[in-house]
Amino acid sequence: MKRIRLGMVGGGADAFIGGVHRIASRIDGHYDLVAGALSSTPEKAKKSGEALGLDPDRSYGSFEEMAEAEAAREDGIEAVSIVTPNHVHFAAAKPFLDRGIHVICDKPLTATFDDAEAMEKAVHASKALFILTHNYTGYPMIRQAQAMVADGAIGTLRVVQVEYPQDWMTDDVESQGVKQAEWRTDPERSGAGGAIGDIGTHAYNLAAFVTGQVPERLAADLQSFGAGRALDDNAHVMLRYDSGARGMLWCSQVAPGCENGLRLRIFGSAGGLEWAQEDPNYLWYTPHGEPSRRITRNGAGATEAGTSVSRIPPGHPEGYLEAFATLYTEAAEAIRAAQAGEPRETLMGKLPGLTAGLEGMAFIRACVTSAKDDAAWVKI
Amino acid sequence: MKRIRLGMVGGGADAFIGGVHRIASRIDGHYDLVAGALSSTPEKAKKSGEALGLDPDRSYGSFEEMAEAEAAREDGIEAVSIVTPNHVHFAAAKPFLDRGIHVICDKPLTATFDDAEAMEKAVHASKALFILTHNYTGYPMIRQAQAMVADGAIGTLRVVQVEYPQDWMTDDVESQGVKQAEWRTDPERSGAGGAIGDIGTHAYNLAAFVTGQVPERLAADLQSFGAGRALDDNAHVMLRYDSGARGMLWCSQVAPGCENGLRLRIFGSAGGLEWAQEDPNYLWYTPHGEPSRRITRNGAGATEAGTSVSRIPPGHPEGYLEAFATLYTEAAEAIRAAQAGEPRETLMGKLPGLTAGLEGMAFIRACVTSAKDDAAWVKI
Amino acid sequence: MKRIRLGMVGGGADAFIGGVHRIASRIDGHYDLVAGALSSTPEKAKKSGEALGLDPDRSYGSFEEMAEAEAAREDGIEAVSIVTPNHVHFAAAKPFLDRGIHVICDKPLTATFDDAEAMEKAVHASKALFILTHNYTGYPMIRQAQAMVADGAIGTLRVVQVEYPQDWMTDDVESQGVKQAEWRTDPERSGAGGAIGDIGTHAYNLAAFVTGQVPERLAADLQSFGAGRALDDNAHVMLRYDSGARGMLWCSQVAPGCENGLRLRIFGSAGGLEWAQEDPNYLWYTPHGEPSRRITRNGAGATEAGTSVSRIPPGHPEGYLEAFATLYTEAAEAIRAAQAGEPRETLMGKLPGLTAGLEGMAFIRACVTSAKDDAAWVKI
Amino acid sequence: MKRIRLGMVGGGADAFIGGVHRIASRIDGHYDLVAGALSSTPEKAKKSGEALGLDPDRSYGSFEEMAEAEAAREDGIEAVSIVTPNHVHFAAAKPFLDRGIHVICDKPLTATFDDAEAMEKAVHASKALFILTHNYTGYPMIRQAQAMVADGAIGTLRVVQVEYPQDWMTDDVESQGVKQAEWRTDPERSGAGGAIGDIGTHAYNLAAFVTGQVPERLAADLQSFGAGRALDDNAHVMLRYDSGARGMLWCSQVAPGCENGLRLRIFGSAGGLEWAQEDPNYLWYTPHGEPSRRITRNGAGATEAGTSVSRIPPGHPEGYLEAFATLYTEAAEAIRAAQAGEPRETLMGKLPGLTAGLEGMAFIRACVTSAKDDAAWVKI
Repeated sequence: MKRIRLGMVGGGADAFIGGVHRIASRIDGHYDLVAGALSSTPEKAKKSGEALGLDPDRSYGSFEEMAEAEAAREDGIEAVSIVTPNHVHFAAAKPFLDRGIHVICDKPLTATFDDAEAMEKAVHASKALFILTHNYTGYPMIRQAQAMVADGAIGTLRVVQVEYPQDWMTDDVESQGVKQAEWRTDPERSGAGGAIGDIGTHAYNLAAFVTGQVPERLAADLQSFGAGRALDDNAHVMLRYDSGARGMLWCSQVAPGCENGLRLRIFGSAGGLEWAQEDPNYLWYTPHGEPSRRITRNGAGATEAGTSVSRIPPGHPEGYLEAFATLYTEAAEAIRAAQAGEPRETLMGKLPGLTAGLEGMAFIRACVTSAKDDAAWVKI
Repeated sequence: MKRIRLGMVGGGADAFIGGVHRIASRIDGHYDLVAGALSSTPEKAKKSGEALGLDPDRSYGSFEEMAEAEAAREDGIEAVSIVTPNHVHFAAAKPFLDRGIHVICDKPLTATFDDAEAMEKAVHASKALFILTHNYTGYPMIRQAQAMVADGAIGTLRVVQVEYPQDWMTDDVESQGVKQAEWRTDPERSGAGGAIGDIGTHAYNLAAFVTGQVPERLAADLQSFGAGRALDDNAHVMLRYDSGARGMLWCSQVAPGCENGLRLRIFGSAGGLEWAQEDPNYLWYTPHGEPSRRITRNGAGATEAGTSVSRIPPGHPEGYLEAFATLYTEAAEAIRAAQAGEPRETLMGKLPGLTAGLEGMAFIRACVTSAKDDAAWVKI
Repeated sequence: MKRIRLGMVGGGADAFIGGVHRIASRIDGHYDLVAGALSSTPEKAKKSGEALGLDPDRSYGSFEEMAEAEAAREDGIEAVSIVTPNHVHFAAAKPFLDRGIHVICDKPLTATFDDAEAMEKAVHASKALFILTHNYTGYPMIRQAQAMVADGAIGTLRVVQVEYPQDWMTDDVESQGVKQAEWRTDPERSGAGGAIGDIGTHAYNLAAFVTGQVPERLAADLQSFGAGRALDDNAHVMLRYDSGARGMLWCSQVAPGCENGLRLRIFGSAGGLEWAQEDPNYLWYTPHGEPSRRITRNGAGATEAGTSVSRIPPGHPEGYLEAFATLYTEAAEAIRAAQAGEPRETLMGKLPGLTAGLEGMAFIRACVTSAKDDAAWVKI
Repeated sequence: MKRIRLGMVGGGADAFIGGVHRIASRIDGHYDLVAGALSSTPEKAKKSGEALGLDPDRSYGSFEEMAEAEAAREDGIEAVSIVTPNHVHFAAAKPFLDRGIHVICDKPLTATFDDAEAMEKAVHASKALFILTHNYTGYPMIRQAQAMVADGAIGTLRVVQVEYPQDWMTDDVESQGVKQAEWRTDPERSGAGGAIGDIGTHAYNLAAFVTGQVPERLAADLQSFGAGRALDDNAHVMLRYDSGARGMLWCSQVAPGCENGLRLRIFGSAGGLEWAQEDPNYLWYTPHGEPSRRITRNGAGATEAGTSVSRIPPGHPEGYLEAFATLYTEAAEAIRAAQAGEPRETLMGKLPGLTAGLEGMAFIRACVTSAKDDAAWVKI
């Protein structure tokens, strides 16, 4: 099986998520990173390329240049990872989409709704696949949870509790030189959502992925606790579903003691499920009236949906990077199938893509709209 | 130290909370139960009295009769516990309050707002103490949490997350002969609040007790998932505080896998605290930027606020009944002080009373009002 | 139902276990403490009696005096609790046993083997019941575990892992005025076993209670880490059972971070069970090849064996004092049955008594013998 | 940075640990797998090579052939991973060691003591590095625990409790076609130790790594519960250290409910540490007399020793594969340094090698010797 030639936009030195994508692309051995436009500063881009062992000829100063040059090469990249701040997602993805190069893009889809619409058009116009790395959906026990809900394990969905608290922005770290905080608190680069865009979209996506339902309306109370912070760093959101289910989403970047506390609890007429990202190898299942069961990844009670994306035996924990790698692996399979001529519509499987991206954007927009109207219910 | 002569209204066979009050009154040895009107059905009352070893002369058919007869005895009861369904609280408490007999009343204060106002008047008019058993405030680690917040351990309060999920009403148990469910789902006996009255008030009270703050406004989304259920069995509530803090309260009786999942998490500018009722001997404290610490009841890191209401060494768990007993013990101390002539205003200490009761009623009213107005913000 | 008139030997001010016994005797309302010889120092005895509200006439200076006087009263005590240091157990129990007064004695049985034999004779010679408070057997989930093992839930027993670590003697607290440490480290008062006598016997008893098996042989490595400490404060013990099962027991008083970490794990050919005293409301059960289940006290999966000794609903934790109270309640039932003329042999039910006490003594002796012989295997 | 050319012996289809080594070698991008003798069955070897995308010319039928051919190539492998069953370790490693090709070998060192001595000689005679993948030492929090112990965080070591229970051999899976069980229960291929060789050595190594101490003597009780099983599947081992510390090691393959329950608890005069492999991102530290602290990987309280081998932020769990990858990464650094001419003695850093391997062999031998002599103390 030949490896897929991969390029990367963004992800130079100091970046967090670029390194994650690179590891994720390596874990299952489906990619070779061969080209990059790793920074918007050309010098930094070159240097980062060197550090990663890229051929200097393929370490580009800009993504446009890279798209053009790679498309022209016989051995040009087949796919590209976009790991820039949000406001660059569209601009960076477009030249590759236009040239039929498959795109693996970090979330959220874009910083602005205009960009989101433009991205939608570009994806539709392209023959390439577009994968959005809502990486938490790659966790095996999340896959199993989704399958269990679909199979009726909890009966009719009633209540969704999803939360994603962090604490790293408790202090005003954006004015203390923390790069990750700088762009995330800047509406120009991050978009209209602060915490809701950065992590709220993950929580929202996860709930949708597992329940198979997207809320119809929401009421959101957004707040900035950090001094002078322009974007929300804490959000309380109530959710109503068409089906009659109700939900609550909380995300925060100012909750001391919480690291990446993404946690999903769902309750139905016949049972409940609970999963926490910080302890991801376990899924708690309670058939109503029976003891709670601890289902372990690849272990007792585990089903195909999760074991098929698991690498090692139960009790040897897989983590965040493996879940991320699962998206890359599934992307590789989809890309190979596309290259083999299979129709794009049939290839995404469990992979998040444009739809998840647009849902995330709609969520952000609805939150911001609701918050401005004193948390009135807003159609999503 | 002589024991206080105690009477009880309600709490006959089948009742849950009556038995709890009796154990709580015995644990620290401050009371002797000597009289009762244990059921509204006189025969059942007599029978229950017998089972408890009451002198048949002091096992009454009605609380009015009991109040009159006991007040007339030299050795009459000094205090009475009211453990009836909510709609009887006021009627049962009044004759005792009127006769200067101290009242220990289960929560919520009353079923209706009219009753609540009447109770308020009756308490003010009486010389007796009025204690409302918001029992979770008796947990040692809750006492310590309160003291820590007051001492600035978490800095300025920002976010309150409090929840109280249960699962026992997932099915329509009220039509299956479960007495506890029957009156709780009946607006006549329970009042305007279902889950919010029964357990939401506990969550609300706990957050107020620990933070020292009562929210100014709330927005509530109430729902009944049980077929034909007249009152809410699930509630999502957003909270805003005068101080700028924000909060979220969730309570549910239809969350499979949850038993009595009361849990409080609070976050401030300098740290966070977490406590769960089902694991009550531990308080988790995170000074921002430092590792989380597990403070144990009566153990390392425990302070006077909690150790003073703890009975046994760390690692030997105390539970629900001990926390409840702490309220009875503090009530006994207050009653003795009152009997010794100390002014009532100075005696309540940490004990919940009329104020907590009225706050709970205001919370229920605000939730119901908000829910009817599509979860609009309502002043509490 | 009339309360049983109870006396107490030991348990004056400063004592820990005396207070525990008193609370335990009150919780379910089966006893009235009416007499005491609460300290070996007569003045302190009187003072402690006063504090507990004893009739001064029944607050005795010595247990002999008390046994004689109470036996002579029409309304004399029906039962007595022995809560002295170990070396007094026999001497204190005997005069009551001789007079047919039921004895509830703290563990271990005695400090010396001579005393143990004498106790055995005295119990056999008496008509009274003899209950030894191996209190951990009163936990509902331990009762259920015992029943499950008996019912074959884990198949053939293979491996027993039991441990009881504490940390309170990490420093030389016995030379710092800690009374609880003083007598426990003194062979004269404590007997030949330090940690093994104080807590190892609890662990040993718990394993025997749940598995229904007592090991045939053991090999013990005892150690004193505290400077100048005469008795063991840490013990590693390997166990072999007649049935072919193997086990390990660890107890320690010098394990920082451990409070009362009694924990039992047992494994058989068909499943495993796990229980921890510090989280006692849950029993973990793994049928081999299936997910682990969390059985909750009085909740889903709970069976009669445990619910019959549980007081409140699941999710409202019961603790150490309730488990202790269960022994007192079962003792009350046995005492009443004895008073009603039922034969003593049939009354002990789940109550630990002489047999458990002698097993504990044999365990201590075997450990000490083995340790002196370089941890050779010793018949128990 | 050029990738290191890696070969692999063993690890064909169906093998578990070969896949783990391959992922581990990829995660940080330091290796390219370019050659293999993936199975002792030549056809299977070819097929497995194909599946992994190896150049058919470099997919060898035997390790001898591979060593010779690769050593002769300009672009021959620089390092080789040995992932065969134990009894092949030495034979497979030798030809590479003899040719100066660096060896990364799975544990235990060998199946027999003769082989171990031969391996020792071969390593000493070679210029190549020899790394033994005691992979659990690659966990960041284990690195931090080691550093904390060295820095005196727990004072003088007193008690070591280490355990590694599994349940996958509860039934006689070796007769049901489970390949992993077949060779592990066969003394010819596994060596004299069953559970003690397979997982006991891991537990032993982990304790030694963190404490910096190797026990002087042990007493071991080995048992086979599986019907007809020739090697131990459960072991209880008591440990004595020169320093006066005592310890206990338990490993089992027949403990239902346990997956890979490697867990280390160590206690000293000034504090305690606890770590569990199934929840590896946390290290629990209790300075004696203070609350336990939860130190998180890369988070609050984390120090250089662990953060330097961590890839992503706290709250995003790393797992087994990342810990394994850390050994590969450190091996890469050592190999590059060796290639740059640095003396081999200075390069191993935290990497386990021959010493750890010989210690493990000595542990197995001592256990088997002790067990045969009724668990007598044996010098290790």
